[in-house]
Amino acid sequence: MIQAPYVIKDLEAIRKTSPLVHNITNYVVMNNTANALLSLGASPVMAHAKEEVQDMVKLAQALVINIGTLSPKWVDAMEAAMVYAKQHNIPIILDPVGAGATPYRNEVCERLITQGKPDIIRGNASEILALNKVSHDTRGVDSMHESTDALDAARELAAAHQAVVVISGVTDFITDGNLVISNPYGHPLMAKVTGMGCTATAIIGAFSGVNPNRTLAAAHAMAVMGICGDMAAETAEGPGTLQMYMLDALFQIDADEIEHRMLQPLMV
Amino acid sequence: MIQAPYVIKDLEAIRKTSPLVHNITNYVVMNNTANALLSLGASPVMAHAKEEVQDMVKLAQALVINIGTLSPKWVDAMEAAMVYAKQHNIPIILDPVGAGATPYRNEVCERLITQGKPDIIRGNASEILALNKVSHDTRGVDSMHESTDALDAARELAAAHQAVVVISGVTDFITDGNLVISNPYGHPLMAKVTGMGCTATAIIGAFSGVNPNRTLAAAHAMAVMGICGDMAAETAEGPGTLQMYMLDALFQIDADEIEHRMLQPLMV
Amino acid sequence: MIQAPYVIKDLEAIRKTSPLVHNITNYVVMNNTANALLSLGASPVMAHAKEEVQDMVKLAQALVINIGTLSPKWVDAMEAAMVYAKQHNIPIILDPVGAGATPYRNEVCERLITQGKPDIIRGNASEILALNKVSHDTRGVDSMHESTDALDAARELAAAHQAVVVISGVTDFITDGNLVISNPYGHPLMAKVTGMGCTATAIIGAFSGVNPNRTLAAAHAMAVMGICGDMAAETAEGPGTLQMYMLDALFQIDADEIEHRMLQPLMV
Repeated sequence: MIQAPYVIKDLEAIRKTSPLVHNITNYVVMNNTANALLSLGASPVMAHAKEEVQDMVKLAQALVINIGTLSPKWVDAMEAAMVYAKQHNIPIILDPVGAGATPYRNEVCERLITQGKPDIIRGNASEILALNKVSHDTRGVDSMHESTDALDAARELAAAHQAVVVISGVTDFITDGNLVISNPYGHPLMAKVTGMGCTATAIIGAFSGVNPNRTLAAAHAMAVMGICGDMAAETAEGPGTLQMYMLDALFQIDADEIEHRMLQPLMV
Repeated sequence: MIQAPYVIKDLEAIRKTSPLVHNITNYVVMNNTANALLSLGASPVMAHAKEEVQDMVKLAQALVINIGTLSPKWVDAMEAAMVYAKQHNIPIILDPVGAGATPYRNEVCERLITQGKPDIIRGNASEILALNKVSHDTRGVDSMHESTDALDAARELAAAHQAVVVISGVTDFITDGNLVISNPYGHPLMAKVTGMGCTATAIIGAFSGVNPNRTLAAAHAMAVMGICGDMAAETAEGPGTLQMYMLDALFQIDADEIEHRMLQPLMV
Repeated sequence: MIQAPYVIKDLEAIRKTSPLVHNITNYVVMNNTANALLSLGASPVMAHAKEEVQDMVKLAQALVINIGTLSPKWVDAMEAAMVYAKQHNIPIILDPVGAGATPYRNEVCERLITQGKPDIIRGNASEILALNKVSHDTRGVDSMHESTDALDAARELAAAHQAVVVISGVTDFITDGNLVISNPYGHPLMAKVTGMGCTATAIIGAFSGVNPNRTLAAAHAMAVMGICGDMAAETAEGPGTLQMYMLDALFQIDADEIEHRMLQPLMV
């Protein structure tokens, strides 16, 4: 169960220490994820050249890898950064965008998970099922499944790779292979904004930069994403305004807001 | 002439079947076009690695190619995806951004049109004139001409390549080489938002994914873009808010809105 | 000292002549900088393939180089474009994003400054200090220093390379090595939006396209950025809405607004 005081503690640590989150991510969401991290209080950096990824990750408190618009050179840099981060105990968060959609994506996921050893993997249900080889019916980058469908796959995947696995969906699930935490916060309109999942992954990076407990870092990040989505949806009139108000919400969210929202009975 | 009931029919089909639109597009607009497709009800995917473009296009209902920030590897992947799409009857929409501006862009356009055989080509007047070799005075990516100036070029280009050609402008024109449909909807402020043309091209992709008549798919898409631009401009105070409200409008637009706007006499 | 009538004169020249600004910039901010230029009244183009950068820069009134997400091929194209621009007296503006963060960035900056000979360099205090080899403690892309800390470094750098150097910060400084102009306009929330500095660099490109005095072009651009930031911050509720209102402000700003804001005593 996600507890407000611990979410607040992590959020305050992010704002106080401004962890540097190094992102090797996709072209579609770079601007959003950088802005989300900055709005929250973290410090984003995007750098992907093999010539510098190790020097950059050395400065970072977390490394976020997202394969959305992958190509061979980028994948090489991702692996190099992950290997270096692992050696230096910098937490690694992997977003396997579109896993299951093409053989190339599956190969790259396999390679990055076995060679790069991510600490946390966040995907939608289709992606988590594909990673666990249960299913390959991902269609593009949107999930064809409910998050509950992937719960067994997530547990197995987490256990097999000693990673925390996060399934995003109407309810999010966070598991270390044994324990499962669910996050009920969030709003349906979030699914209509490109890269909301990628933003969640980046935010997990920020929380991992201040909280060494991977499971709690992931859970607290997903709670903050969901609460901010709820805040933004109150005034948004569609996906365009939601995207902007989401950044405002990440900037505005504070202890009062978290306590207030987490105490309210959820409307379902 | 564009008729409201058929626009509505296509829009409802997009929302019901959520066609997957595979985009190989430019860095500047990726986020906007993905969000526009998602807001409308389609399912966007961006993937450009030669290692996977054919596997990805196989899953798609339409392929959108946009050369805005072209480079040799991307062009190779574009051609490979187009050839595969053509073999499998997946509609191909080409956006020849900046055609006429540099010899390299002209060569690439020539190559993609002759080898990739797009079903629909959408550009501004300068680009359409350049494609038809009538003029090479494109300056960057903005049009130096009115859309009416390119009407003959569009007709010839359409006939020569058995493609539907769309000229964007104050009035848009859609032609299959014989028939010309004009679309009067839209707002001048749209020209002040980067990538509005690229978004139109992506939206044509969504309509082509549900309507096999290429001419009507293109015309209906342009009508929806224009109407959404009008909707967004009512509350926008500049290009920044227009861009966001445009996404909201693509999400909100429905049968009532289309009927209402298409019945109103146009203010000119 | 920045004088309103001369800022207004440049702004009106931008809107009248719509200078083409060729950007070779980073993935994160491409959309923002293109939209900022277009909102202001300039004409942006983004093109980075070595196959066309010289043909594209030939059409432009200014060249903006930004190394945010650099990689070897992009750096080669940047240098080629700079060398060509220099030969043809097209003003070159360099944004050394993250200078000091990695050895690779430092090498590239050294190369682009010595081979590409930028007319104007804009960075935050950490970047300017790093360029002048005074300090290498840049952490990612955010400044660790106040703009005043880098004033001596900026003066030396400007003198050594016959360039105008701009330090962004709470107060911006613009120097040609002798003269120092300060720009007090701007709002703290601007620092919470990714790529606001990159946007400033692009806007300097637009002003350099109409004003041959590099120092004044840079100073006027920074004043307009700051004033637009102030305008946007009046209604923004966080970084998300600020980003959009900033584009609206660049579109709305006019002689009255500039005179009014520059006459007001500053709130500090």
